[in-house]
Order: sequence, then C-alpha cells, then structure tokens
Amino acid sequence: MSIDMKGSKPLFHRVSYFETDQMSIVHHSNYIRWMEDGRTDYMRQNGVDYAWMETQGVIMPVVSVSCEYKESAFFDEIAEIRTRVAFFNGVRLKFEYEILNEKGHVLVLGKSEHCFLDKELRRPINLYRKLPECCEKTARLIKEEEQS
Amino acid sequence: MSIDMKGSKPLFHRVSYFETDQMSIVHHSNYIRWMEDGRTDYMRQNGVDYAWMETQGVIMPVVSVSCEYKESAFFDEIAEIRTRVAFFNGVRLKFEYEILNEKGHVLVLGKSEHCFLDKELRRPINLYRKLPECCEKTARLIKEEEQS
Amino acid sequence: MSIDMKGSKPLFHRVSYFETDQMSIVHHSNYIRWMEDGRTDYMRQNGVDYAWMETQGVIMPVVSVSCEYKESAFFDEIAEIRTRVAFFNGVRLKFEYEILNEKGHVLVLGKSEHCFLDKELRRPINLYRKLPECCEKTARLIKEEEQS
Amino acid sequence: MSIDMKGSKPLFHRVSYFETDQMSIVHHSNYIRWMEDGRTDYMRQNGVDYAWMETQGVIMPVVSVSCEYKESAFFDEIAEIRTRVAFFNGVRLKFEYEILNEKGHVLVLGKSEHCFLDKELRRPINLYRKLPECCEKTARLIKEEEQS
Repeated sequence: MSIDMKGSKPLFHRVSYFETDQMSIVHHSNYIRWMEDGRTDYMRQNGVDYAWMETQGVIMPVVSVSCEYKESAFFDEIAEIRTRVAFFNGVRLKFEYEILNEKGHVLVLGKSEHCFLDKELRRPINLYRKLPECCEKTARLIKEEEQS
Repeated sequence: MSIDMKGSKPLFHRVSYFETDQMSIVHHSNYIRWMEDGRTDYMRQNGVDYAWMETQGVIMPVVSVSCEYKESAFFDEIAEIRTRVAFFNGVRLKFEYEILNEKGHVLVLGKSEHCFLDKELRRPINLYRKLPECCEKTARLIKEEEQS
Repeated sequence: MSIDMKGSKPLFHRVSYFETDQMSIVHHSNYIRWMEDGRTDYMRQNGVDYAWMETQGVIMPVVSVSCEYKESAFFDEIAEIRTRVAFFNGVRLKFEYEILNEKGHVLVLGKSEHCFLDKELRRPINLYRKLPECCEKTARLIKEEEQS
Repeated sequence: MSIDMKGSKPLFHRVSYFETDQMSIVHHSNYIRWMEDGRTDYMRQNGVDYAWMETQGVIMPVVSVSCEYKESAFFDEIAEIRTRVAFFNGVRLKFEYEILNEKGHVLVLGKSEHCFLDKELRRPINLYRKLPECCEKTARLIKEEEQS
C-alpha cells in the first residue's frame, strides 16, 4: 500500500507523553485513535463533516479494524497520518491508513470498516437514502482512487 | 487524611500496561480515572447506581478535581482506591480519595467536586427534589462520616 | 471461534465511564486495551509473568492486531475477556480473544501477534534460547489447544 | 487568572471523538493530558526541550495537579491551551493553564507542580546544578511573568 493523497492533506500529529508506555514507544492502541482522527480530517477535507452527520441523526460505528505495526513512534515526533477511502456502497465504508514518521518510514498500515446507523433506533441505514449529498462526494472519491 | 471505609469496601485495580508511560510509572492522568471508578463503586455499594441516575435524566459532571502524587504505581501492581463522601447538600457533592499500593503506601490523595444537571436541558438541579431517595442515602453517609 | 478456557479463568472487566464515547458505547480502541489485559492475565495464570519477563530483558511488542466488533459494551456492564494462545514458535506468539457481555453475547473477536525483543538492543530474540522455562509452558498450552 | 502569552504561542488542539464520553462532552481527565501537551509545547517554544531533558538523565514528574471545569469542550472544536510558568527555584516548577474554546470562553483553569529527578536513581535533583542552561531560560520567563 502506498497512499496517494490526491490533493487531500495528511494529518500531522505530535506524539504526546501520555501516549508512550514503559517500552518508551507509543502504545499500540493509540494508532487506532490516530486513524479515527485521520478519517475525520479526511472526511472534513472532502466536504463530509462527521460532527454534522451526527446532528443529522447518523452515527458511523466501527465494524472492524486492523493494524500492522512496522516501526515505533516516539515521544515528541511528528507522525503523518494518510487516509484514503477504499470502498463505499452506502451501507459500508472502508478506509485505509498509512502512518509515517518524520523520516518517511512507514510505522503502521491500518484498515477500518464502518456501517451507518440511525442514531436513535440504532438500526442500519443506507446513506444514499438518508444523506445523498454526502454519498456523491464519497462515491466520487472512490472513483478517483480507483482510477489512479 | 486517612479514609475509614465504614463497611464500604475499597475498589481494587490491577495496573494495566497501557497505563504506564516512558517514566515506567503510571501516567498521572490515570489516577483521575481511577477516582471516577472509585466513586462509581462507592455509590453503588451505598445504594446509588450512577448508571440508573442517568436513566432518570440526571448527569453528575465534575466541577473540580485535584491530586497530590506521593508515590508511583507500577505495572501489574494492585492499587487500592478508597473513597468517601466529604460534602453533600443536594446541589454539590464532594468526594475524597486515597489510593494505596499493596505495601499500604499512600500513592495519591485526591478530591473531586460535582454538581447535578438535567441531562437534556443541561441546567443545575437540586437532587433533593429530583431524586430524593438518593439523597437520603447520601445524607446518611455524610452524617456517619462526620460522626467518625 | 469459541474459546474454551481449559481451566484458565476469563478476565472480568467492569466498563468505566471514561471508556464510553458520545455514541454512549465503549469506544472501539478500548477493546484493544482489554485484549492486552486479557493476555497479561492469561499468561500469569499459566505461569508466565510478563512483568518478570521485562525484568529479564525481554519485551513483547505487538506486531499486528485485528478486531471485529459484533455488539457494543455499555457503561457499568461487566465484560468477560477470554484469551487463548493460537501459535507459538519462540519467535512469534499469536493470541485470540473473545469478549462477551453479561448476557453471553459476543461483543468482539480479536487477534494479536507478537514478537520478542531484547529490551536494550531492540533486536529480535528467540524465546527458546533466552527464557526456555517460559517456552515450555507456552508450548504445552498450544499443544493442549490444538488437541481440543 | 488571565494568561498573557508574552510572545509564546498557545497550543491549539482539535477535540478527538475518543476524548468524548457519554455526556457528549470531553471527559474531564483529558484536560489533564492537554495541560501536559501545553507545557511541553510552552517549554519547547522557550528553548527547553523536554525530550532532550530526558536524554540528559532528568525526568520531571507531576507532584500535584488541579483543575476547575467552567464549561465543556465538544467533539471537533478547537481548544486553545495557554500555559505560563508560575514558580521555579531549581527544585520545584509550577505551571498555570487556561483552556479556551473558539468563542473565547474559558473552559478550564488548571495548575500543575513538578519536581526534577535523576532518571536512573529516582532521586530529587536541583536543575541549577544539573542543567544550568535550562534554568536561566526558565528563571528569565518567571521574571518576565512577574513583571507583567
């Protein structure tokens, strides 16, 4: 995997002290959190504001997540979080992530899969019906990713 | 301060690896979280279930918190969290905490102060009016604490 | 997957308030942390103390992790974390996890993969050479798992 | 308190989803973590790199911390963390913090107190003896703060 950002900007994150553990590296659970920050930022850049989505009664819980840890991040380094949409059909949305350090080394390769639920009923919804304007943007992104 | 548990049982917590930082001690922010676990457990033992309180439309946000760090907790140790109610008048509730390690050394002395809000309106409420049955129990605890 | 505990006891974890997010469910990153607690507990029960391993100069970083989220855990519930060893050859160690709620519903299925590093040099080591006594126990567990 | 930044820049932090709890606000323990980020950034801006300090064998644990919570921060908002040095004598260092939201409302007022320890021996040290070059900068900051 090598994520081409296609005009989207990566998210930069300076490693906090509280993110380290007694191995003197970033605790592995934090990368899952950075991936969340990465997709929120990526969605915002591409016109889909997740905070707004929740006000429209849609939540986007995580269905699955996976991470391969290649190298460690250290306190005070600036990590670069690259995100791309890998799949979207209105019911499922998949992201892929690449986290790099300042030397350009790949630290983590990650994936996450999401569904859309009605916030009150907690039932699956099709985003094409509920928020079609979001879907057009996302579908376009997918197409661009596939063509590259 | 030395907290007499008066029939309440302390909460025991085994230190998780992810709670350590690169000083090889528990990161100081985690004790604030243990204090939350301590008061939830203390309230439950004394007949006030916080999860139930929220279903009744009452939330209990933190107004202030303070901690003195005396000694460090280490990975895999079992910490003992002692909690007592220090003040209650229906509008404000104060707790005091003492966290000890397995040797009986005091690690942290803590305090927290809380108010009660209507969950929907986010306005202050008097718990004596909204949930009087909770207040009797709490007021009794206070009296017992004061008499000791 | 259905994890037979074979005499090992599962780890029970009461959900903390700080583990919830504004979906009113446990944030997905926390299950990765519970899996860590689960394997530490499982190893301890089976005679391998991870805190001791680190004092012997061996660290066991995470190489990969994955989670499938089936249902949500809620504040104050007691989650049951079941762990088993799935693979071990002295260089790599794999665990599988099953997290259940009090009703016995499977919330999360997880996997993690680990290597062993010299704590100072940060170079891969073969645990059979470095800490053979740990390996015998682990190899025996694997054999028992495979035979079931 | 109203923190005049005196040429130092505040630290801006966008609220992550995982920092919220089921009250739909930022969990109170996170502000303690933002204060840590704030002082690390403030020290760096003023020529004292904490990561470097640790490489020199000095750690700076937290001796006490306190927070007054005035208003809540919400997901996706950008919080402004203002930090100033309030006391320094080579043995103790105190910081004060003010956290604001985008509307300029004060969310949190905080304080923290620190000592300096030899990283290996875990014994108190006087920073004037161990790292005099750091002290001059810090003492100068204090003087400037006092004169304002």
